[in-house]
Amino acid sequence: MAQKDDVAARLAAVVGTGNLLTGDAIPDDYAHDEALTSPPQKPAYVAKPATAEEVSELLKAATEAGVPVTARGSGSGLSGGARPAEGGLLVSFERMNAVLEIDTGNHVAVVQPGVTLSELDRMTAEHGLTYPVYPGELSASVGGTVGTNAGGMRAIRYGVTRGNVVGLQAVLPTGEILRTGGRTSKISTGYDLTQLITGSEGTLALVTEATLKLHPRLPHGATVLAPFDDFDQVMAAVPRIVASGLEPHILEYIDNLTMAAMVHNDKLELGVPAEIRDRTEAYLAVALENRVADRVGEDVETLGELLLELGATDAYVLEGGAARKLIEAREKAFWNAKAAGADDVIDVVVPRTAMPPFLTRSRELAQAAGGGVIGCGHAGDGNVHLAIFCPDPDTRTALLTDIFGYAMELGGAISGEHGLGRTKTKYHDKLADPAKLALLRRLKDGFDPAGILNPGVLFA
Amino acid sequence: MAQKDDVAARLAAVVGTGNLLTGDAIPDDYAHDEALTSPPQKPAYVAKPATAEEVSELLKAATEAGVPVTARGSGSGLSGGARPAEGGLLVSFERMNAVLEIDTGNHVAVVQPGVTLSELDRMTAEHGLTYPVYPGELSASVGGTVGTNAGGMRAIRYGVTRGNVVGLQAVLPTGEILRTGGRTSKISTGYDLTQLITGSEGTLALVTEATLKLHPRLPHGATVLAPFDDFDQVMAAVPRIVASGLEPHILEYIDNLTMAAMVHNDKLELGVPAEIRDRTEAYLAVALENRVADRVGEDVETLGELLLELGATDAYVLEGGAARKLIEAREKAFWNAKAAGADDVIDVVVPRTAMPPFLTRSRELAQAAGGGVIGCGHAGDGNVHLAIFCPDPDTRTALLTDIFGYAMELGGAISGEHGLGRTKTKYHDKLADPAKLALLRRLKDGFDPAGILNPGVLFA
Repeated sequence: MAQKDDVAARLAAVVGTGNLLTGDAIPDDYAHDEALTSPPQKPAYVAKPATAEEVSELLKAATEAGVPVTARGSGSGLSGGARPAEGGLLVSFERMNAVLEIDTGNHVAVVQPGVTLSELDRMTAEHGLTYPVYPGELSASVGGTVGTNAGGMRAIRYGVTRGNVVGLQAVLPTGEILRTGGRTSKISTGYDLTQLITGSEGTLALVTEATLKLHPRLPHGATVLAPFDDFDQVMAAVPRIVASGLEPHILEYIDNLTMAAMVHNDKLELGVPAEIRDRTEAYLAVALENRVADRVGEDVETLGELLLELGATDAYVLEGGAARKLIEAREKAFWNAKAAGADDVIDVVVPRTAMPPFLTRSRELAQAAGGGVIGCGHAGDGNVHLAIFCPDPDTRTALLTDIFGYAMELGGAISGEHGLGRTKTKYHDKLADPAKLALLRRLKDGFDPAGILNPGVLFA
Repeated sequence: MAQKDDVAARLAAVVGTGNLLTGDAIPDDYAHDEALTSPPQKPAYVAKPATAEEVSELLKAATEAGVPVTARGSGSGLSGGARPAEGGLLVSFERMNAVLEIDTGNHVAVVQPGVTLSELDRMTAEHGLTYPVYPGELSASVGGTVGTNAGGMRAIRYGVTRGNVVGLQAVLPTGEILRTGGRTSKISTGYDLTQLITGSEGTLALVTEATLKLHPRLPHGATVLAPFDDFDQVMAAVPRIVASGLEPHILEYIDNLTMAAMVHNDKLELGVPAEIRDRTEAYLAVALENRVADRVGEDVETLGELLLELGATDAYVLEGGAARKLIEAREKAFWNAKAAGADDVIDVVVPRTAMPPFLTRSRELAQAAGGGVIGCGHAGDGNVHLAIFCPDPDTRTALLTDIFGYAMELGGAISGEHGLGRTKTKYHDKLADPAKLALLRRLKDGFDPAGILNPGVLFA
């Protein structure tokens, strides 16, 4: 253990003794994120750096000692991307949690990776601005959302993390501190390292600062809930709503079972009569927002007519409180699934027109495997969140291989926003084009020749 | 020359004798793009493939023979990225020019790289949709715009090429045909190869198909022209207009000299009285669009009041014809600069709040070098287009090194949308962070181990 003590001493010299944990002093929380199928694993070291320079020194030490390194923000990820490796170093960004600047001239926020989305939301709101990436969990850190390329409900209007990160400071495993991009959304000067690092799940570099695009926070909004008898009508309605130019910022489908669970768990009062609820196969929730209050009312009218024309049984305009509760309940879908005993959650993305065959086949495959799936999702993005009920691990692996394989046949991908992490990597390794996998590995080698960054994540 | 004949025979076997040009049969047009400072160079071979499989075979042959390869769309680039290498193979995509599909369910267009933006615009218009990337030159090919990550005037609302390319088919120099992304704008499954290849100027892979995000084509619009006595007021106005939530899709500044040239060359009738023109230092052109006609009128009113509050001398609402002519004239700014004898054009990007110091210093540096700069630019994006008047090449190189260096000090980059090509690469090599350059080279090696793709472009 002498070598291990040497490493610990060197890491402690970088961050200070009080900011390095080892052995039994490491709380259980650092052993996992929120993934349902990634067994906890305590790291050998937890370091809490305060600066990019400290991160650089930590990485140099880890590279020299051959210690695997995992980055951690809030630990709210759903794919095991923040679960440390055995004997590894967990770099926790909890002390690098400052909003460094809200730049109202360039409409960007410059933040450290440990900042939570809720803190950023509070600070941008003071300036009438918003960072529009709202994954379900607002305790998520910016660093974590950059790592997974988080999406969330507002992506239909504002895009996912990728398009909203315009610059990064990132540290290579060999210690170099790089700056990519800047306070501008337009650069054609060399390869786009900002977008390459975004979504790389801590396997290429550790992000120590992010420059995020801010948007005007539109003050007026409304949410419309439309029940449909027939799921296929919901799916057919989506492109028509997008084409309308109404620019919804939320466009979610919720299947009847998921809605029933939400109504029950969150005591939602949606004003939908029981006889309509009973015949409903799925709901669309559509939120509109505008700079001008009157326009919201007009647009809700237009949307309501369009929904009826597209086969909705009715269209309910939810008042502020009810709308907020519905959206919050939808954001908690993962926790409902977990509470209901789901064995895994997946977030496949397919072309939105392929959602009906994808869902039909997924249900059939799950039934054939003796299990079941229920779900909801970002209908405008083709991003389907399914809770998987299938307790036997081998059966479930076979089922998910089939489901992911079918999604890919349809032109989709394994994950729309959670990332591959540790839990979906084996499927990617098996199903992805080998030539593409080989290329991804060469890119990884270009950043991380010693392979110390998050081994087991993205590549098995 | 036997070896050269062997190569020619192999290439001809791939594309057919009629689609391979060599020696004197190669027209001069293939020797250059529209860059002002890249001397023409005829390639040894011009091949016109019809399929991705043919591109793959061409690249395998080139890799084996060590022949450098350059891709060409319409040849309208401004940085020499489509200028072939001596003894090289030019792959012209003129036969791969089909719009394969306008997918109204998923709101994407699937196109071959040789399709022009004007053809794509015509075909999307039939469906009430638009591909919103409008660089000045609509004869540009989609492949070229993907290569340079083209921007254009509407980026302030719709983003640049990068955010609007959701999938690619691309051929590695070693012949593998890859598919990246898909008909969805949200993927967190491995590194984002789509965005890495976009903007890589033909140095990583050859794009053989692109899937492009389409947006509803908003039917109603108006353009407002606002003269300002003081350039700094123009710059201070920009963030206020962006923050207003009016969502302009065009937000351009035009300095008085450039406007005078546009008025003269394009016979613009803007309705701005002579006494106001004479005192004006710069103009803002702001275009608004909406789904609803009445809202355009209301928004123009709001915008006009805001502009006056921000110091505009007046605000002129241009009628349809006059607005179109102004925008067309602005798009021709490059040709005006060329006709006026400009020695180079640059398209630096800086944080938008840094435009005033950048422009002041650029003018001072140019004057000190015995030259001058005039310009216009995408004010919302901090993307400054300057015509450089400085005939002596060495003096100009020193001047541009200083200008680019200062832009980078301000947090900007050498090119916002034209790319580095052959003409700006030497500045990048000199000014960029060596650690970043080394990383870019490692990524290049991961795609193109033999270094056959567009040598001299992006890296000197």
